[in-house]
Amino acid sequence: MIYLDNAATTRLLPVVREAMERAAEGNPSSLHAAGRAARKQVEDARDTIARIVGADPKEVVFTSGATEANNLALFGTEGHVVTTAVEHPSVLEACPGAARVPVDAGGRVDPAAVGRAMRPETRLVSVMWANNEVGTVQPVAEIAAIVRARGVPLHVDAAQACGKARVRMVGEMLTLSAHKMHGPKGVGALVVRRGVRLRARQVGGGQEFERRAGTENVAGVVGFAKAMELAEREFDARMARMERLGKRLREGLAEIRDARFVGGGLPHIVNACFRGVDGEAVIIALDAEGVCASSGSACASQSLEPSHVLVAMGLRPDEARGCVRFSLGADSTEADVEGALAVVPRVIERLRRISPVA
Amino acid sequence: MIYLDNAATTRLLPVVREAMERAAEGNPSSLHAAGRAARKQVEDARDTIARIVGADPKEVVFTSGATEANNLALFGTEGHVVTTAVEHPSVLEACPGAARVPVDAGGRVDPAAVGRAMRPETRLVSVMWANNEVGTVQPVAEIAAIVRARGVPLHVDAAQACGKARVRMVGEMLTLSAHKMHGPKGVGALVVRRGVRLRARQVGGGQEFERRAGTENVAGVVGFAKAMELAEREFDARMARMERLGKRLREGLAEIRDARFVGGGLPHIVNACFRGVDGEAVIIALDAEGVCASSGSACASQSLEPSHVLVAMGLRPDEARGCVRFSLGADSTEADVEGALAVVPRVIERLRRISPVA
Repeated sequence: MIYLDNAATTRLLPVVREAMERAAEGNPSSLHAAGRAARKQVEDARDTIARIVGADPKEVVFTSGATEANNLALFGTEGHVVTTAVEHPSVLEACPGAARVPVDAGGRVDPAAVGRAMRPETRLVSVMWANNEVGTVQPVAEIAAIVRARGVPLHVDAAQACGKARVRMVGEMLTLSAHKMHGPKGVGALVVRRGVRLRARQVGGGQEFERRAGTENVAGVVGFAKAMELAEREFDARMARMERLGKRLREGLAEIRDARFVGGGLPHIVNACFRGVDGEAVIIALDAEGVCASSGSACASQSLEPSHVLVAMGLRPDEARGCVRFSLGADSTEADVEGALAVVPRVIERLRRISPVA
Repeated sequence: MIYLDNAATTRLLPVVREAMERAAEGNPSSLHAAGRAARKQVEDARDTIARIVGADPKEVVFTSGATEANNLALFGTEGHVVTTAVEHPSVLEACPGAARVPVDAGGRVDPAAVGRAMRPETRLVSVMWANNEVGTVQPVAEIAAIVRARGVPLHVDAAQACGKARVRMVGEMLTLSAHKMHGPKGVGALVVRRGVRLRARQVGGGQEFERRAGTENVAGVVGFAKAMELAEREFDARMARMERLGKRLREGLAEIRDARFVGGGLPHIVNACFRGVDGEAVIIALDAEGVCASSGSACASQSLEPSHVLVAMGLRPDEARGCVRFSLGADSTEADVEGALAVVPRVIERLRRISPVA
């Protein structure tokens, strides 16, 4: 199997799995030795993540994943919100009344437009680090400067950037995901700067500094920290590898007639649109040949609507439906890319011959 | 180490760990083979849990644990709630305006009192299957009959009963926890009967039948189902073992001067109150001798307040502070109990000699 859907989820690295197998089994809230051993592992994991993103350990709130972290940032804030048209649904659906700043044809938001969308009553701005469908990196540092000058907190959803950018605190809240960087599913974090007003959503136990109740997922946070530590340590090598493989993938796909690329920025995402085919049909045909890719995001893969991201970038619905996302991981190989390139052109041509759209 | 704090959390059984190691690595929302393999495992786990509790698979909503499940049931319901004075904080803090039905000296709620507390505008009744601090089993079947006759849904928090009772759907919503029955931390479920009105709390992705968004914790739900399957299959043997060990533990502790027991019902919880000592001091002294026990619940172990459960049962604060919870697991042994009994009487006597409370 050729797995080129790392933007949906990545494989657990063996060394992460091993760290999780050594996780303590006590309840971190217990006072005895078994509890203290678990507490130490959770706090060590918190320290690791805080150190990497440039936060205080007390600012790291572990959650069940990026969706919970995004929901906590958005639902936990009262008042008017400014966001963008290309955020993940876990942001957009958590702020239905928000102003949505449009993006350009590359999927990029203009920092000045974010400033213009802010009102006196705006209480939060939420902009993703990088887009999960097209890989476009947002100018979060420039946005942070504008938002900070207005005294409003900025939330940055860095779920998709984890492991593919040196993710740091640029605003007041930061969403992280473990399973996007070869860590476990079911764990993530919202890093929240001290002093940010945020209403807890999960209550009844006082864990996570009263910001998120529930027995800590000890093995999960241990694996999360290990995955993040590795992503940081091996960053340059992984990036060089993903850039090289991504470049080769683009070059190969570019030879297909009427192919175009949308977005781009993070090295691991190559979103290619093929005129006259349906992306989902491509995915299914590729799957039959052992190649895993995606049309749109995994979260929206059951949906018949064209991607809100591609529509916001100005694609017509029929163009958006022809887009296929290939995404690399730290464990992707030359053989994966060459294997995919041996299959994709043939599949596209075949579908074009039989497609009523063409 | 003698681990007698299984009500706080249990050890992962090796066979559960092995099942989790075989978990598929795809995103269950992806259409390709890797995604379908993960989807199949999640749905198989859902089927297993549904079959055991007597629900339809579509009624099982996986969550990050019992706290999230309880919060979802309570926060997800609009209107007046009736609950009891001895619920877990993840219920009580999620319905601050609820009527709290009192309990008797044994920690038991009177079904008729639940009926009397209901008002025309009551939209939910929430009663735990069994109490996490004292083990008292509530008459949930009788309560369900009364509540159902009034056309109101009943939520039952069975977190602590998991693995220690044959947990079944008795009302319209049921909270389950994996890590209380030798499964992993970070996963649980709210089983919700079709037709029950419940507002989703975690949004943006449509997973779990639109009731709980977020990439599924595949390994977690696989481990959860395996733990539940084992608890069900080995139920009689485990119960007989815990009853035998629990009886021996009670007999041994009863020989301590001025010891009394509170609550009781689930076989694994022995809550013993020792006059003239502070429970937390007992826990710390026992820990120094290699015995893990608890005063109150793990979630409240950092709190200086006397247990709300023991206070509701009529204990004075000084009596409540002298209580220690010993709790058995499926992997507890005679040696654990005898080892604890060799230590506890000595520790209590020593603390009584030096205690200013005595």
